[in-house]
Amino acid sequence: MSQLIDIEYLQQHIDHFLTSKLDQLNVNNDELLAAMRYGLLMGGKRMRPYLSYVTAITLNVESTDADAIGAAIECIHAYSLLHDDLPAMDNDDLRRGKPTCHKAFNEATAILAGDSLQTLAFDIIANHEFSPYGKTKQVKLIQQLANAAGYQGMCGGQAMDLAATDKTITLAELEKLHALKTGALLEACVLMVAECAEQVSDEDKNQLAIFARSIGLAYQVRDDIIDITSTEEELGKPCGSDLAANKSTYPALLGLKGAQEKAEQLYQQALQALARLPYNTQTLSQFATFIIKRTS
Amino acid sequence: MSQLIDIEYLQQHIDHFLTSKLDQLNVNNDELLAAMRYGLLMGGKRMRPYLSYVTAITLNVESTDADAIGAAIECIHAYSLLHDDLPAMDNDDLRRGKPTCHKAFNEATAILAGDSLQTLAFDIIANHEFSPYGKTKQVKLIQQLANAAGYQGMCGGQAMDLAATDKTITLAELEKLHALKTGALLEACVLMVAECAEQVSDEDKNQLAIFARSIGLAYQVRDDIIDITSTEEELGKPCGSDLAANKSTYPALLGLKGAQEKAEQLYQQALQALARLPYNTQTLSQFATFIIKRTS
Repeated sequence: MSQLIDIEYLQQHIDHFLTSKLDQLNVNNDELLAAMRYGLLMGGKRMRPYLSYVTAITLNVESTDADAIGAAIECIHAYSLLHDDLPAMDNDDLRRGKPTCHKAFNEATAILAGDSLQTLAFDIIANHEFSPYGKTKQVKLIQQLANAAGYQGMCGGQAMDLAATDKTITLAELEKLHALKTGALLEACVLMVAECAEQVSDEDKNQLAIFARSIGLAYQVRDDIIDITSTEEELGKPCGSDLAANKSTYPALLGLKGAQEKAEQLYQQALQALARLPYNTQTLSQFATFIIKRTS
Repeated sequence: MSQLIDIEYLQQHIDHFLTSKLDQLNVNNDELLAAMRYGLLMGGKRMRPYLSYVTAITLNVESTDADAIGAAIECIHAYSLLHDDLPAMDNDDLRRGKPTCHKAFNEATAILAGDSLQTLAFDIIANHEFSPYGKTKQVKLIQQLANAAGYQGMCGGQAMDLAATDKTITLAELEKLHALKTGALLEACVLMVAECAEQVSDEDKNQLAIFARSIGLAYQVRDDIIDITSTEEELGKPCGSDLAANKSTYPALLGLKGAQEKAEQLYQQALQALARLPYNTQTLSQFATFIIKRTS
């Protein structure tokens, strides 16, 4: 077994944590709660909570702090998928081989479930009993979450993505788009956990941010490659969907070989950032490998 | 002049505060930022910030704390309007006499602008320099905001509203729906400001909550009455739209006269709660009058 971390165990652990948060909500609109549950627990790699945990291991942060941070960021990610899949956005019927939320329920419920999951993210961080270092930083954690999720982060990136449809954009524009759309939340996974550590220097935070940004971009390049090289069965959704949607992708801009080189280069950049840190970064480097070597 | 508070001045003040928050955002997706601005600054009574200010006056809280609280809650309110107006929800083309956001821009942008405005609400509270009493309660303020906005508050109420369409629901169900959909945010305006006060007893907070819930419901009853007694010009949108949408309303359940009596009864209930408070509550009672006597 080449992984220090048991991913399946971690996925079960985070699903259990998220389920407990949903179970604590009392309002009794069964339809909305079911749609939130569907959107939040429909599977997926749980890459963001996973990154929070490996960062916590690296920086000796309480795993319960990583629970809350990973769960909150997963709520933001899940809400963004519910909204991105809507007919007015990417108009996707399938996600991970299952009907998208608006197909399983209806559009209005999917919109509201997304809205409620965004709120739940802030709810989780604001109501979590952080260990002492996290406690003093709780407001700062919420600042980081808001910054990563909103106009200055993920939402801004999604708007750029919409604007780039049916257009050829430059490589720099594509990188900016993904740095916001995907990178901002991954960076938050790492830096929010770093806030809960006893002491992490600004320079080390900077290297952690470079690591997170590099793997975030590498993830996206890899995603673009997988979209054109996988089968529909492996993907759980139609392959070539970026192409069909006329989206700019790394393979489109750089060719398949160029995109593969780009992913490798970002992977090396991530490993170099880790090498500059005064911690045992083995689990973080395994995470980078996990991201870059995946085939689905 | 019968008002202690100059409403127009207050509306300009809050618009200025909200504009400054939007101006501080840097990402450069002009379309999304324009849609956020459109949704947030399209006018309206600014009832929520107004209620934050009058509560601050009553409890001797710094007006800058009320700025942040009122602005954050207005962001939540504005995002809910952008999403509620969508074709999949209420499908409204006009709001305050102007095209709704998805008509002025497009659906995808209206969804994203709503999402970004929700994030901005938390951003504002997390990044505001509260005065000392507010500062120690900043995490609590975010808890309150999340509780009022999400599944347990406004979103849950909106889901109940959707579920009640084309159905006759009981008066108790209608009250629960509005207590969440409209009441939760109004209550938050009052109670979040109360958190920033030097000392407000639990009993006084309880009376403030009763006040807020009563006027919240009174507002909704009045809204239902106005919807059937106003002209389209007064309303800025088609009148009788609740009827057309087959929604349960107070006049439908109680008759017009019964609904008017209900509004008056809630108004009296609000004034009684104020009478039990050891503060000069003149501005709060004026607010209640403003809510209940309005004709548009």
